[in-house]
Amino acid sequence: MSLADLVELVGIADLGAELETLLQRLYPICRSITGQGVRDTLAILGEAMPLTVHEVPSGTQAFDWVVPKEWNIRDAYVKNAQGERVIDFEQSNLHVVGYSIPVSQKMSLAELRPKLHSLPAHPDWIPFRSSFYRDDWGFCVQHNRLQQLPEGEYEVVIDSTLADGSLTYGELLIPGTTRDEVLLSAHVCHPSLANDNLSGISVATTLARYLLARNRSGRPSKLSYRFLFAPVTVGAITWLSRNEDTVQRVRHGLVLTLLGDPGKIHYKRSRRGNALIDRAAVHVLQASGEPHAIEDFLPYGYDERQFCSPGFDLPVGCLMRTPFQRFPEYHTSGDDLGFVRTEKLIDSLTKVLAIVDILEHDDTFVNLNPKAEPQLGKRGIYRALADRGSDSGNEMAMLWVLNQSDGKHSLLDIAERSKLKFGQVRAAAALLEECGLLRREA
Amino acid sequence: MSLADLVELVGIADLGAELETLLQRLYPICRSITGQGVRDTLAILGEAMPLTVHEVPSGTQAFDWVVPKEWNIRDAYVKNAQGERVIDFEQSNLHVVGYSIPVSQKMSLAELRPKLHSLPAHPDWIPFRSSFYRDDWGFCVQHNRLQQLPEGEYEVVIDSTLADGSLTYGELLIPGTTRDEVLLSAHVCHPSLANDNLSGISVATTLARYLLARNRSGRPSKLSYRFLFAPVTVGAITWLSRNEDTVQRVRHGLVLTLLGDPGKIHYKRSRRGNALIDRAAVHVLQASGEPHAIEDFLPYGYDERQFCSPGFDLPVGCLMRTPFQRFPEYHTSGDDLGFVRTEKLIDSLTKVLAIVDILEHDDTFVNLNPKAEPQLGKRGIYRALADRGSDSGNEMAMLWVLNQSDGKHSLLDIAERSKLKFGQVRAAAALLEECGLLRREA
Amino acid sequence: MSLADLVELVGIADLGAELETLLQRLYPICRSITGQGVRDTLAILGEAMPLTVHEVPSGTQAFDWVVPKEWNIRDAYVKNAQGERVIDFEQSNLHVVGYSIPVSQKMSLAELRPKLHSLPAHPDWIPFRSSFYRDDWGFCVQHNRLQQLPEGEYEVVIDSTLADGSLTYGELLIPGTTRDEVLLSAHVCHPSLANDNLSGISVATTLARYLLARNRSGRPSKLSYRFLFAPVTVGAITWLSRNEDTVQRVRHGLVLTLLGDPGKIHYKRSRRGNALIDRAAVHVLQASGEPHAIEDFLPYGYDERQFCSPGFDLPVGCLMRTPFQRFPEYHTSGDDLGFVRTEKLIDSLTKVLAIVDILEHDDTFVNLNPKAEPQLGKRGIYRALADRGSDSGNEMAMLWVLNQSDGKHSLLDIAERSKLKFGQVRAAAALLEECGLLRREA
Repeated sequence: MSLADLVELVGIADLGAELETLLQRLYPICRSITGQGVRDTLAILGEAMPLTVHEVPSGTQAFDWVVPKEWNIRDAYVKNAQGERVIDFEQSNLHVVGYSIPVSQKMSLAELRPKLHSLPAHPDWIPFRSSFYRDDWGFCVQHNRLQQLPEGEYEVVIDSTLADGSLTYGELLIPGTTRDEVLLSAHVCHPSLANDNLSGISVATTLARYLLARNRSGRPSKLSYRFLFAPVTVGAITWLSRNEDTVQRVRHGLVLTLLGDPGKIHYKRSRRGNALIDRAAVHVLQASGEPHAIEDFLPYGYDERQFCSPGFDLPVGCLMRTPFQRFPEYHTSGDDLGFVRTEKLIDSLTKVLAIVDILEHDDTFVNLNPKAEPQLGKRGIYRALADRGSDSGNEMAMLWVLNQSDGKHSLLDIAERSKLKFGQVRAAAALLEECGLLRREA
Repeated sequence: MSLADLVELVGIADLGAELETLLQRLYPICRSITGQGVRDTLAILGEAMPLTVHEVPSGTQAFDWVVPKEWNIRDAYVKNAQGERVIDFEQSNLHVVGYSIPVSQKMSLAELRPKLHSLPAHPDWIPFRSSFYRDDWGFCVQHNRLQQLPEGEYEVVIDSTLADGSLTYGELLIPGTTRDEVLLSAHVCHPSLANDNLSGISVATTLARYLLARNRSGRPSKLSYRFLFAPVTVGAITWLSRNEDTVQRVRHGLVLTLLGDPGKIHYKRSRRGNALIDRAAVHVLQASGEPHAIEDFLPYGYDERQFCSPGFDLPVGCLMRTPFQRFPEYHTSGDDLGFVRTEKLIDSLTKVLAIVDILEHDDTFVNLNPKAEPQLGKRGIYRALADRGSDSGNEMAMLWVLNQSDGKHSLLDIAERSKLKFGQVRAAAALLEECGLLRREA
Repeated sequence: MSLADLVELVGIADLGAELETLLQRLYPICRSITGQGVRDTLAILGEAMPLTVHEVPSGTQAFDWVVPKEWNIRDAYVKNAQGERVIDFEQSNLHVVGYSIPVSQKMSLAELRPKLHSLPAHPDWIPFRSSFYRDDWGFCVQHNRLQQLPEGEYEVVIDSTLADGSLTYGELLIPGTTRDEVLLSAHVCHPSLANDNLSGISVATTLARYLLARNRSGRPSKLSYRFLFAPVTVGAITWLSRNEDTVQRVRHGLVLTLLGDPGKIHYKRSRRGNALIDRAAVHVLQASGEPHAIEDFLPYGYDERQFCSPGFDLPVGCLMRTPFQRFPEYHTSGDDLGFVRTEKLIDSLTKVLAIVDILEHDDTFVNLNPKAEPQLGKRGIYRALADRGSDSGNEMAMLWVLNQSDGKHSLLDIAERSKLKFGQVRAAAALLEECGLLRREA
């Protein structure tokens, strides 16, 4: 699995342009943990894949949680005495605190001020705030603009509804040749934030298109891939509560988020710490030779928190570039389309493909000539003239695979011990299998 | 368990002053591995606790050892030709080699010199020497004074007795709500040495007063605490030989010594290396953020040598500040009351309390909502307005406890993995238990 | 086992001189993986030990390999138009590519050039090349000389035979008091290369002389020692194929090679990674306090590749000084007698003896007084006057042996944990055993 194969098989002329277009279409939508924004988002994703959209009614119990009322918003503003919109939802959906209850009243600036949120340290950015589980309302505003508001009376309107409805999420299972599943999850509940939600959505969508194309072309993956596009926390919890059987087939998983910023790539381990998904991700990042960071599991962050809760303990890690709260644009209007770099999205996708490649191909072999080395030369796969000095990686990979293939070491085990790249080890095993020197373990 | 609770419960007006008074009373006594000095010491400790004093007759077999003859001394001196005491037991009991047999004779300085011990590198200090297991005698003297002695005849008197008697040790069991025991041991066999014996005795005595006060006030500890005040080596061995049944109830233990010097605190691991006492001590020292050192087990030192012998292998470590032989005052008159800092004694006591607190409270819980996170917000124990930026340690502790409480991880396990302090983790567990989210494992 | 004991028991007047003489006799012989050169080499080694010489016919199957035709060479040269030998086998046997088929023809320099190998980076050295498994021929020549050859016609003669014959190896089993075996292997298939073959041969030969002398003098080793002098790869594989039963008695093994160059000593671990041979070698190198390096197993190098193939997985490591390919003289005429330092050979032998000493004496004891420490003083093996300050290593070794001897820790375990030298620990155990304090485990 590689980017080149993806681009060719899916038939993409310009991957960067396609990713940018997807982000541009998704960016303006006012998403929240429920409501029309999620539906609009899933409708766009549904153009690229046969996504199943689930609607779970408000009030439905999901373990310790209850599906909340559905929130929708048409308009919101603060008007000054001159009737000018000094804060305007039309300009940015971040201006309204998420899940704000309807408001329509006049008040002085002094009365209004406790409902206004700003970032003094980044006075030109609008912060992102929500109040999901307490009936409240508010506006978010650039600190510079806030400071320029004169005292006086303001008209405050939030034309929202908070009422029984449903929580919406999208799901797609792309079957492989086995029923063992890989869970790939991206959250779809943030309004106009590009890195924090759209980057993960776009990478996941591109991967789904590839796996679908493989199935169409008769080259299905070995594992089945389950894509989940759901609101963070309550969405994941709702999905888990409705899929306790499904969960038992999940062998590996990745939460995909924050994949477009300029920072180096980070992998956060699953609760298990050293599951195959963890080892595969660590191998890919280390073998890349590029700056990266591996972080231990922490029960805080995105939906890996839920997947790794002790009652499930799924082997699900989180792939991201700069982790949340570590870049100033996080949860502000600074996380806009300009903050996401197309080449970083593509680099993140490349890493995801490399990780998935290991999950697909981490087979275990048995050396059929285990006593002493087999004579590679007579099979034409070894240098005929000895003593040439330094050995190529390819020959070392063959020797490592032969030496370690006692039925107890998988290809990733061998790559880890030999410090060779998984791809080299896998290629060596394929050549040796062709020559009849290895037998693949069932 | 904390210093504040201790001071309040015991009713101590000025802890430093009480510790200083205890040291001043104990300092002048001429202790050795047997004899009246040990009895006088235990009598003073008995004022603070209902200590049982054991007398084991000379000649009693204790494993490979035999309880030695009892040594007592009334006076000792070296007089010059003018009849002046140039070396005088009355000035310092360190002047006489411990266990010196009686002597009364006149001899030239040349004859006397092999019996005189001094420290050329520290010419103003008197060394501390003993000869327990070989009948011998001698004097210890400041090197400066030794060099000033003129040739001539001297009268040498040691008015000691070495005769059948007994070995004396004190013991106190403070019962908790379970019979599992913590062994706390301090040696009581060194003469006028302050750090090397009195510091450990005073810290142990203060802890005993606290545990007794807790019992009186209806807040008994969970574990039972056995205090042992015995002569080093033969005392501990004698106690072990008479308590083979008791020893089977010892779950944790600490040898307390060298706790008042200005150096950073050291913990020496038990033979097991990673028993709960080891992990608790390491956690407390690391979490303090103060300079400290962790040392591996070594079969040399204080009575942890005996407790950690292979036939017992008790989980007993040793807490001290600067280890023996690593400060110049060690086993010299330089280890006097001025060498011990009251604030260091209190700091050492604080560490002991923190370690004991972990032993008492390292419980294991089961998350009663193990599937996905429970909704903390509806219970009022989580921030209502999301996305506030950085999370407080308290919330992280709750998330860690919930995530790890699968019945297999204790609170110390969780503190170690999360790198949070045990106290934070314990407080979070208590809050979650109150909310009905955790069940304590039996 | 020590160098001093070796020299005395074998009766060697000047060990350095004997090693040098052996190297000088072996150096001129034209060895290859078969042929008279190997037989001549083994004949010389046979003067020092009752070596069994095995001849395995060409065509014999050895696992995946077949014993090749036997190669012998009488003469070879390239003559210029004046009839002068410009490349002459008589000057150095490295001039002919090993296993060259017979040639006798005239050709232009242009035609000849593809058959000439040189080292531009080391223009005064002749490279070493072979072509075992492809019928080919060639000459190796100093790059400087090659560049001076004028165009013109040359007479090219290789007077060799490549015909059915046999593969030759030498083997010697020196029985100990048990049948457990140590395998010591040195390759004997390189022509005039001193470090790369003769150094290992000479160290192995000296060790064999010592073990034989011990047997003669009634001080046999505990383990049996099997020496193997065989051509690399196909020789080891042939031996393995004929000794599948023997191999089951191999408990430890060392490949000895590259032991005379000036570099620091290296130990390459066996495939198992932490077998006793690995731990013994690591201990000896670390305890030496001298520069050294420990390398992980790699399925490339000398015959440890075969011994550590998965079907055998023998605990065989490789001791060398500078590893192959890491010194410029490797596989060139620069690896001559002057490159090997006698004092380095002796140092390597000393390390081998120290490793073997651990294999022989890594016993496990049981402390017969496991409860508390025994009283060493009454046995006269502890300082009588206590408190002397710092303790000698000997006393610490006794305390460690007593503390750890619970039947689960061998002397090497104790040396590793205590960071004392194996010899100290072993001496302490011997003393304690004499005193009746330890029982040796069967």
